Amino acid sequence: MSLLVVGSVAYDGIETPFGEKERILGGSATYISLTSSYFAEQVNLVGVVGKDFADEDIELFKSRKVDLTGLQIDLSGNTFFWKGKYHYDLNNRDTLDTQLNVFEHFDPVIPDSYKNATYIALGNIEPSLQLKVLDQVEKPKFVVMDTMNFWIDGALDSLKNTLKKIDLLVINDSEARELAGEPNLLKAAELVRAMGPQSLIIKKGEHGALLFTENEIFSAPAYPVIDIFDPTGAGDSFLGGLLGWLSYTDDLSPQNMRRSVIFGSVMASFCVEKFGPERLKNLSEKEIYDRYREFRDLSFVPEVGL
Amino acid sequence: MSLLVVGSVAYDGIETPFGEKERILGGSATYISLTSSYFAEQVNLVGVVGKDFADEDIELFKSRKVDLTGLQIDLSGNTFFWKGKYHYDLNNRDTLDTQLNVFEHFDPVIPDSYKNATYIALGNIEPSLQLKVLDQVEKPKFVVMDTMNFWIDGALDSLKNTLKKIDLLVINDSEARELAGEPNLLKAAELVRAMGPQSLIIKKGEHGALLFTENEIFSAPAYPVIDIFDPTGAGDSFLGGLLGWLSYTDDLSPQNMRRSVIFGSVMASFCVEKFGPERLKNLSEKEIYDRYREFRDLSFVPEVGL
Repeated sequence: MSLLVVGSVAYDGIETPFGEKERILGGSATYISLTSSYFAEQVNLVGVVGKDFADEDIELFKSRKVDLTGLQIDLSGNTFFWKGKYHYDLNNRDTLDTQLNVFEHFDPVIPDSYKNATYIALGNIEPSLQLKVLDQVEKPKFVVMDTMNFWIDGALDSLKNTLKKIDLLVINDSEARELAGEPNLLKAAELVRAMGPQSLIIKKGEHGALLFTENEIFSAPAYPVIDIFDPTGAGDSFLGGLLGWLSYTDDLSPQNMRRSVIFGSVMASFCVEKFGPERLKNLSEKEIYDRYREFRDLSFVPEVGL
Repeated sequence: MSLLVVGSVAYDGIETPFGEKERILGGSATYISLTSSYFAEQVNLVGVVGKDFADEDIELFKSRKVDLTGLQIDLSGNTFFWKGKYHYDLNNRDTLDTQLNVFEHFDPVIPDSYKNATYIALGNIEPSLQLKVLDQVEKPKFVVMDTMNFWIDGALDSLKNTLKKIDLLVINDSEARELAGEPNLLKAAELVRAMGPQSLIIKKGEHGALLFTENEIFSAPAYPVIDIFDPTGAGDSFLGGLLGWLSYTDDLSPQNMRRSVIFGSVMASFCVEKFGPERLKNLSEKEIYDRYREFRDLSFVPEVGL
């Protein structure tokens, strides 16, 4: 099945305790495309870049067979630039610089050849733009979206409208609590699901993730990475691995949703091993499936007889 | 196999957002004994109570076939009393009152009939007293202990001496970080294991627990309890369920250690459903094994073919 990805394509400046990159390819659509490309038959990207966008980055997408028909090149300015700094507690980061540039007026236009998309990933952009994407496609089978506290605070009505149209929301624990206005995570999950998405994933950073579906909860472990090198893109890689797997298998059963959470976790665990999307350029099938099995072993609970 | 439990026997005053109990049976040895009694062939308790200790509480232990030969009754004072208050965030509690009473001079004396103990649970008491217990027993097969930040801060040398003599330490994540002087939990785990215990369990509250053994890590999920009624005793119930299972099966393989972590989690999840040890008085085998299977389902990762 083909997979449509809409989100930001950016350049990031990154400082971590382990090193510094002045400028490296980033953005939600970048990470989602690259990671989902390991599973999906076809990845179609919609985003915008500026006149400074490098040929080698175009080539990177092409090398992963990501279709760029939907990538607008806006020569009136530069590509979205973000600069951030991580401290030893890699869960938190300071934004040092944000230059929206051509992304400021991003208007997602879905090319005709993408309109029959079945699996859709809406990266973290303004909720009204996410909705605009859905207005342009024909009859998607499964839509997953990301959002953030910035939109919960500043565009709640619009966000709630978008939530009615999607199948799976992926957010972190503090966002879930804030969106639901409820500190208990399980109660918050039910309240968020009542807003629209039949399924919900709550990411808990170093504590793994919870998947809430109609009748069950799945608790996925976090990969025990001793040295996280650069957390940038981990959340988007999670989303890409997850939706890539679902589109590849075209199976939305609870069992396969569990697998998709693990494949999301697998791609996130690779992402953080190097700077930016570096580690996501050339993964082998064996590496991916081996790590899936590592996750499986990590949380394996043996049976007992009564 | 018989199981020796050493720790506090107390009365607790408990305030939670859901109600209040002025005085209810508590203490680490109480929770460990009651929960392990569902598995262990024989539970032997060493502790001290005062002249106010109620007959009905003696009867409760007896009803669970806990041997009280090692329970000292010190008529010079009252039983250890602790009063605490939980807020809506049930992870934190305020201590409102602590009356050590006869527990202040607790000197654990192991009766001859207990000295051949094979499985030993050292509840959270002064590390030098925990060591004193080990000096009195013959040749234990497996010793598990609990401790707390109070001893890490105030009795570190003594604690390190005790750690050399035990097989499994069970602590929470902040204690592990403090004991190791290392914020990364995985690195902290290795540093703590280097202090003596071959195995380590790090409890992460609502995020489950991690078991570190010689060659592997096991990530156990937390039970999704929507309404925790009273968290008092959950940690000790975890320890009791865990060691009870190990002593019952007399199997220290990594696979069975995983099962023991789940049985610990099972008993903790029952504990928090009612005030004090109320829920632990009459559990059926079916309830316990059913909940084990719920934990198993919760974290079950399906296989994939390559």
